[in-house]
Amino acid sequence: MTYCVGLKLNDGMVLLSDTRTNAGLDNISTYRKMFFFEEPGERAIAIMTAGSLSVTQTTLSRLQEAIEDPDSDETTSIMKANSMLQVASIIGDTLNRTRREIAEQTRDLNQQASASMIVAGQRQGGDMRMFLIYPQGNFIMATEDTPFLQIGEHKYGKPILDRVVTLETDLADAQKAVLLSMDSTLRSNLSVGMPLDLAVIEKDDLRISLRRRILDGDPAFMAMSHAWSAALRDSFGKVSI
Amino acid sequence: MTYCVGLKLNDGMVLLSDTRTNAGLDNISTYRKMFFFEEPGERAIAIMTAGSLSVTQTTLSRLQEAIEDPDSDETTSIMKANSMLQVASIIGDTLNRTRREIAEQTRDLNQQASASMIVAGQRQGGDMRMFLIYPQGNFIMATEDTPFLQIGEHKYGKPILDRVVTLETDLADAQKAVLLSMDSTLRSNLSVGMPLDLAVIEKDDLRISLRRRILDGDPAFMAMSHAWSAALRDSFGKVSI
Repeated sequence: MTYCVGLKLNDGMVLLSDTRTNAGLDNISTYRKMFFFEEPGERAIAIMTAGSLSVTQTTLSRLQEAIEDPDSDETTSIMKANSMLQVASIIGDTLNRTRREIAEQTRDLNQQASASMIVAGQRQGGDMRMFLIYPQGNFIMATEDTPFLQIGEHKYGKPILDRVVTLETDLADAQKAVLLSMDSTLRSNLSVGMPLDLAVIEKDDLRISLRRRILDGDPAFMAMSHAWSAALRDSFGKVSI
Repeated sequence: MTYCVGLKLNDGMVLLSDTRTNAGLDNISTYRKMFFFEEPGERAIAIMTAGSLSVTQTTLSRLQEAIEDPDSDETTSIMKANSMLQVASIIGDTLNRTRREIAEQTRDLNQQASASMIVAGQRQGGDMRMFLIYPQGNFIMATEDTPFLQIGEHKYGKPILDRVVTLETDLADAQKAVLLSMDSTLRSNLSVGMPLDLAVIEKDDLRISLRRRILDGDPAFMAMSHAWSAALRDSFGKVSI
């Protein structure tokens, strides 16, 4: 499985993904699930993926191919699209087409081949946008009421987000919130694993403002994780029923 | 949906269930999901249910019918069974038979009719036992390594249990842990709802030592919930990355 989470806040967007991929429990690998498409000062787009690796890799290769195609235009290349809505649309169409093709190929095996994505970005002259793209290619947007989107194993890490994240959360706290949300997920579900990819796109920065890979055993992450566990146990001791 | 959780600890067993049942989002009702079978001083059994109401109600009615049947014996009545293992076996067989019948009836509608249960109990001369019974009638037991079992919407409430529950947790803290686990679930998932049923079976008490219905707006539960949210936000402020 996978856990990816994106926050769209007043000050910018914060993204976090794990890297565990498994075909059964005995075939576990590490694959990046966060991808950047960037022309600094003009547009910055991040894509996080969950689901069948064959679907997500092929979809991303096709998006890249379209970008490099000299004949590409605003309807085929996410680096030329005139709006983030059009970016989401191109990605959704590519994802749906790829998913259908692979589902058709694997039909006789009765296997699932599906994927979903979170797309976050901003282009010059436009607003920040974050989308959750469904396997069928349709999508929803993060809004003021729901400033975060999740794909994959989203349930373990939702309670902390529900409690601490608002539009006004600053980007430092936002990074802490997604890391704690991931920490809860890592503890409760083996199919989500280190290392992690963290990214921040600050509002109107029009570039990937921060990108960081957090390796297994990262001292800062471990310290935060231990401090959070201790704080939770401490809080547990103080609350009475 | 449903959320039921049971802890099997050194001092006894603690059970908590919600009461929300829904057939679609526009048909929401309240149904008890925790049931007691008790002969004080001889045996005490609690059953919590998740899944299709038609399956769980029919299964419980059949278990009750078998208990009242003057011809019942240790292989058919959970009040006469010679061990908790046999109790689990009778419940598993009854559940599986009922599920299959109803699945057969509803086959042409392509509807799901399934259910799972948590069974906790102790009989005179035996140890405390807690089982998770699958729709097919097979089951697993709570053990020293895994002192809790969950059915239904189990993911939201798992991180807190993973962090604070051990075999040594006392029964007061255990009640707090299941209530906080439920609180996280209630906040994050509309399909789990108040009121709640809480029960405790103390070790060697051979009766339902405590049973309590917690109504919507219960002042103690609300105070605990608010205190926990405040403590979490406070902890969040203190942890640094």
